[in-house]
Amino acid sequence: MTFDLTEGVVVLRRTPALLRTLLSDLPEGWIEATEGPGTWSPFDVVGHLIHGERTDWVPRVEHILRHGDAVPFPPFDRDAMFAASKGLTIGELLDTFAELRDDSLRRLQTFGLTEADMDRRGRHPEFGEVRLGQHLATWVVHDLTHISQIVRVLARQYSDAVGPWRAYLSVLRPDPRSLIPDP
Amino acid sequence: MTFDLTEGVVVLRRTPALLRTLLSDLPEGWIEATEGPGTWSPFDVVGHLIHGERTDWVPRVEHILRHGDAVPFPPFDRDAMFAASKGLTIGELLDTFAELRDDSLRRLQTFGLTEADMDRRGRHPEFGEVRLGQHLATWVVHDLTHISQIVRVLARQYSDAVGPWRAYLSVLRPDPRSLIPDP
Repeated sequence: MTFDLTEGVVVLRRTPALLRTLLSDLPEGWIEATEGPGTWSPFDVVGHLIHGERTDWVPRVEHILRHGDAVPFPPFDRDAMFAASKGLTIGELLDTFAELRDDSLRRLQTFGLTEADMDRRGRHPEFGEVRLGQHLATWVVHDLTHISQIVRVLARQYSDAVGPWRAYLSVLRPDPRSLIPDP
Repeated sequence: MTFDLTEGVVVLRRTPALLRTLLSDLPEGWIEATEGPGTWSPFDVVGHLIHGERTDWVPRVEHILRHGDAVPFPPFDRDAMFAASKGLTIGELLDTFAELRDDSLRRLQTFGLTEADMDRRGRHPEFGEVRLGQHLATWVVHDLTHISQIVRVLARQYSDAVGPWRAYLSVLRPDPRSLIPDP
């Protein structure tokens, strides 16, 4: 499927509501649950998404519009949320994410991007030349990746509770792919 | 984490709203998208969840309460939704699922299950002795598995569109575990 900005925005716009339905008022223990040492809890993931709104998605669009591929993006700090989320509740994080996403999509709209703009070049600090459309498609997939991750973390809390059904539920089996994607 | 009926119901109750937020009014093409031949679309998955409400989750609770482990569960038909969903819209499927889930949870409550009931024995047609609590935990994990599957199917539609970011998004890499869980 080719990336289409209008369609992509339809998906991006529903992420805050989705996270709220998934995580608001969940029984204690689920929000802080992880998949083991070094992996993220739903609480950590929402903090990571907040940091993406602040420093990655729209800021890198602005970066491309301003610098093209002449200046690489500043690198993304994937551990920033551990300090930034400290002392906050999941409800506060969900509210903050919803406000920031709303603001991101409003700013995105002010750029008036056309289909031709999707080919604009940017420079990624690690893998070099990228296109604006690829960056925006990544924003969509990144949301979906982390929603899928949260759902998996929740599911795995019942890994033992399901007994013999465990063998039939692929989500409970170890995933040989990396657990924390980091675009 | 030990299975707790009240907590499990909190998760089960939000699945219809979650699917609605995820799938209602999505751009054309996403609802019928799959991960390749033999894999399910979001449309197929919602049909599968509907069939589970009708023939698996509460019916098997009733089966255990009536027969214990003397009579194995009737096997579950994992292809039933291909015929049953024919000609319906995703909106109709989402409505049907929401009604059935609501009804399932109401019926579940009428059984007045206690913690001791969680140890009641049933018999699975393939893997033998199971406990009522394991069946109910599986219901929760099964919901989460299929939500995660839908999210992954959507994400993969942009596998090419993300360009070089592809290498960083684990959800886009082939999953060596089976794609369609079948408890």
